[in-house]
Amino acid sequence: MRIARVTTAGDIVYAASDGDDTWYSLSALGFELSDSAAVVQQIPAIRERIAQAPAEAVVTPGEFLAPVVRPPKSLAIGRNYALHVKETGSDLPEKPVLFSKFPSSFIGSGERIVADNAYTEEVDYEVELVVLIGRTASAVSQDEALDYVAGYLVGNDVSARNRQRDDKQYDLAKGMDTFGPIGPWITTADAVPDPQDLDLSTTVDGEVRQSSNTRNMIFSIPFLIEYLSRVITLEPGDVLWTGTPHGVALGMEGTPFLREGQTVTCEVEGLGALVNPVSFDRSAAAVSV
Amino acid sequence: MRIARVTTAGDIVYAASDGDDTWYSLSALGFELSDSAAVVQQIPAIRERIAQAPAEAVVTPGEFLAPVVRPPKSLAIGRNYALHVKETGSDLPEKPVLFSKFPSSFIGSGERIVADNAYTEEVDYEVELVVLIGRTASAVSQDEALDYVAGYLVGNDVSARNRQRDDKQYDLAKGMDTFGPIGPWITTADAVPDPQDLDLSTTVDGEVRQSSNTRNMIFSIPFLIEYLSRVITLEPGDVLWTGTPHGVALGMEGTPFLREGQTVTCEVEGLGALVNPVSFDRSAAAVSV
Repeated sequence: MRIARVTTAGDIVYAASDGDDTWYSLSALGFELSDSAAVVQQIPAIRERIAQAPAEAVVTPGEFLAPVVRPPKSLAIGRNYALHVKETGSDLPEKPVLFSKFPSSFIGSGERIVADNAYTEEVDYEVELVVLIGRTASAVSQDEALDYVAGYLVGNDVSARNRQRDDKQYDLAKGMDTFGPIGPWITTADAVPDPQDLDLSTTVDGEVRQSSNTRNMIFSIPFLIEYLSRVITLEPGDVLWTGTPHGVALGMEGTPFLREGQTVTCEVEGLGALVNPVSFDRSAAAVSV
Repeated sequence: MRIARVTTAGDIVYAASDGDDTWYSLSALGFELSDSAAVVQQIPAIRERIAQAPAEAVVTPGEFLAPVVRPPKSLAIGRNYALHVKETGSDLPEKPVLFSKFPSSFIGSGERIVADNAYTEEVDYEVELVVLIGRTASAVSQDEALDYVAGYLVGNDVSARNRQRDDKQYDLAKGMDTFGPIGPWITTADAVPDPQDLDLSTTVDGEVRQSSNTRNMIFSIPFLIEYLSRVITLEPGDVLWTGTPHGVALGMEGTPFLREGQTVTCEVEGLGALVNPVSFDRSAAAVSV
């Protein structure tokens, strides 16, 4: 099942789709979903209700907005693919490297990534598999870890490389408004047989930049959940960004950072694609395409 | 006015007090306050209603729990006092250094700071002034910045120094459960004439470790709000931890990190004191004192 937050007929609604391309409005089906915690808690009820939804509840999605709203936390892992660690000239981490990806940076597919020239001209892309937590997880073992996952999404961990380099801390570099494309929808965990075997890729104006598979993670999703949940309680609706493979602009000949007018597409096998134009004109920040 | 979240007669309620030590239950006065965004939005109404509150609404607070619940974001600034930067052997930052302090780490005064031996034996204290954002702030200038502040609190940015050193990123080191004592209540901004002139201190078992004044910040609160809000939208209910002065264990002769059974007290002038016992016994994590 897929759960999206979409524009339709001048409104914004959550919608769900199971097995085909028919989307049902979840507000028409009686759900009040104010944030990501509410969404994950209602997944079983949503599944049940759309199986017998009336035709009047069908909607035609316009834009796919960021489907994760006000998560309790948004955790992110750095340096989690060996070839990416190598291309950035860093050392392999002995333990997972944790930073944050602020929810205020989240945008949907189709929305513009808008950078501020005064803060950065070195804007880079990073395709990632994003994990959505479904249940409170405290000191969970690797064996049980995936039972705590509600679903998966595609993420683009847009990064201002100069600020990463100068601040050392990543949170501003990666937390600016519009730097967190996420979506295009939530794919529920039951529809993802093996999250550790998914191709993921980035293209810029059609040119392939990143192409790898989630099996290349240094620290697997179950390992990350065990390691983090022992000291940081994971909450329903939290998201965990799991790191990016090699192929970022920083590691390429000529460092081809994102430029005005380019379009960056991030895709994870079976989870859809995020398509985001790039702009350095902040007056266009609120404009969707 | 002060706004707290307290235990009373087996219940947990928000309570407010204005000018004296009489606390009124805000649920008895008809407020439903589910998170920090709701609290800041209701401040004018709370002020009005407690001015004419009936005696039946008076409560006797037991424990003061963390008064900031589910903030949209919890931002934190590192290396913001020159003598602290010096004691840690770092360079003075040219721009504010941003990291996150996860809300799942927040505890109130009286609750135990509980560290996990397997992750750290180098647990340090950091008294900080914490700013509570009252209104959506995007590209706000320094001149107007304080208009966006709803109130202030004391914070203890408890830090696992070994993880900071090894991870480089601060978010795990400072984001473990119980590592975020905050409170003991929200003091509304009108009751703080000059947030840039407040003494702040830490004692460990009565021994003074930190003693400084918020005027010693490298980047002032208005500067931080201008710098951050230009690229990161600040939201009602967000908190901003503004950095710690010198005197942390890491910078002292013999590095006297926190030990089992010690009590750490962090205080900011006019905002109250956070008193937290320290334990390395995680089975005691849920136990309040």
